Amino acid sequence: MTPPTSSPLSVAIQGEAGAFSHQAAMQIFGPGVNLVPTRTFDDLFAAVLTGRAERAVVPVENTLAGSVQGNLDRILQHSLHIVGETGVRIQLAFVAPPGRSLSEIRRAASHPVALQQCQRFFRDHADIEPVAVYDTAGSVRDLMDGSSAYEAAIGSAWAAELYGAKILFPEIEDDPKNFTRFFVVSGDAEEAPRDGAKTSLAFVVAHEPGSLHRALGVFASRGADLTKLESRPIRGRPWEYRFFADVRGHPEGSLGECLEELRGLAAEFQVLGSYGEWTEIEPSAG
Amino acid sequence: MTPPTSSPLSVAIQGEAGAFSHQAAMQIFGPGVNLVPTRTFDDLFAAVLTGRAERAVVPVENTLAGSVQGNLDRILQHSLHIVGETGVRIQLAFVAPPGRSLSEIRRAASHPVALQQCQRFFRDHADIEPVAVYDTAGSVRDLMDGSSAYEAAIGSAWAAELYGAKILFPEIEDDPKNFTRFFVVSGDAEEAPRDGAKTSLAFVVAHEPGSLHRALGVFASRGADLTKLESRPIRGRPWEYRFFADVRGHPEGSLGECLEELRGLAAEFQVLGSYGEWTEIEPSAG
Repeated sequence: MTPPTSSPLSVAIQGEAGAFSHQAAMQIFGPGVNLVPTRTFDDLFAAVLTGRAERAVVPVENTLAGSVQGNLDRILQHSLHIVGETGVRIQLAFVAPPGRSLSEIRRAASHPVALQQCQRFFRDHADIEPVAVYDTAGSVRDLMDGSSAYEAAIGSAWAAELYGAKILFPEIEDDPKNFTRFFVVSGDAEEAPRDGAKTSLAFVVAHEPGSLHRALGVFASRGADLTKLESRPIRGRPWEYRFFADVRGHPEGSLGECLEELRGLAAEFQVLGSYGEWTEIEPSAG
Repeated sequence: MTPPTSSPLSVAIQGEAGAFSHQAAMQIFGPGVNLVPTRTFDDLFAAVLTGRAERAVVPVENTLAGSVQGNLDRILQHSLHIVGETGVRIQLAFVAPPGRSLSEIRRAASHPVALQQCQRFFRDHADIEPVAVYDTAGSVRDLMDGSSAYEAAIGSAWAAELYGAKILFPEIEDDPKNFTRFFVVSGDAEEAPRDGAKTSLAFVVAHEPGSLHRALGVFASRGADLTKLESRPIRGRPWEYRFFADVRGHPEGSLGECLEELRGLAAEFQVLGSYGEWTEIEPSAG
């Protein structure tokens, strides 16, 4: 599946050219990335599982909306490896075809997570109905090629430029501190840098008092920095949860003992991958 | 705001009569509940904040899809009290007007969480496009009163009966172990039972290694049973998280010391409410 080194990597995204996932892919792989657009998250994962793409760029959380639910489950379910991370600032523009006035607009299409991030806009424009579609950039493209049933769309300024839409309101997201974090996933593991690495893992603890505390003690006792902990329901086992954690460090370095100990403690345990931490926008000291 | 005791309580739900939230409301308040249907979760909370309803029944998590994102944030943001919980088994029926054949159906409308729970159905019927609308029961009602732009809907068998739709496929959810958990929220706190109580709280810990472990130690050291831990992004503070926890016990009983200690440890801390635990469907021993 590995092409000659002169070819650009083929990278799958959910959505179309101009999507925020496309920006994320370019940040990591450069503007010449060989983009493989897909329609749904299932299609995105299928692209890398079937070899149609060598990597997938997968949104996993947004600082306003929260987790992009299901994507960590999919990485685990398909035994894929997380080999990189990046983040993109989400600026959402309300766009329409040139010449269309605001009073003509009854419905605006975009991705449901994008719509969720523009709640103030829809409260202030109560006569405009949000309509969930599969992609921000796709909503702009469909608007401009005439295939959309709606009068406006919400996407990046870049998508507006790419498809020739007019920006009526440039930044309608509820909060400017609006970032989406992406993982790069691959069928093959990659060597992560020893310095500045982050490691993602999944674990299930026994359903008894104190079990999660004991699991986190593995990291706390060694001063390991847990940057994220997320719980997800376990399919078929109502009211039981799997935890997805991100920890600073490398399994062959500082995290080695932690992970061995957690593997021994946990009912289920998987390392999803190690990768260079995205540090362009530092978490605040909090 | 309290009516004469002979009047049934007014209870707001998101969605229409026939929604799963309506089932949840009837489980707690009986079939004579005075239902206040609302369109969005913001409207649902507004109903109880303005006194238009005395209680709101709020879905908070589903055993397949995960957290109903944003609703715990809303309970905290509006300083509402959690005064009860219940759960409903989600069985999703694919319905159409009587006489419409499957081959005529191109699009099926339902709530996005319901659509997410029927992924296998949409893979098996790739020619039918899922369309996200605001409510399961509303999608069935709109289908039957002619106001829907789509040919089919997905909702409960009860909604189908209520609005006269024909069930083409009775149980299309991906997994039969499909439950949604609901909180009852109120502007006023209520006395929770001392036995069989559960308490919900929200806390933020310092952004440093070991801080979450220390916080959970408050419960572990006393054998308190943490049944749920969920992280949510904090608006305006990218990559920082608030934890929402459910713990068995009552603040004026076994949990008293735990909560006082956590209040001292945490950067932010709120008790959201105590209520009788919903035990009809026991969590498995796992």
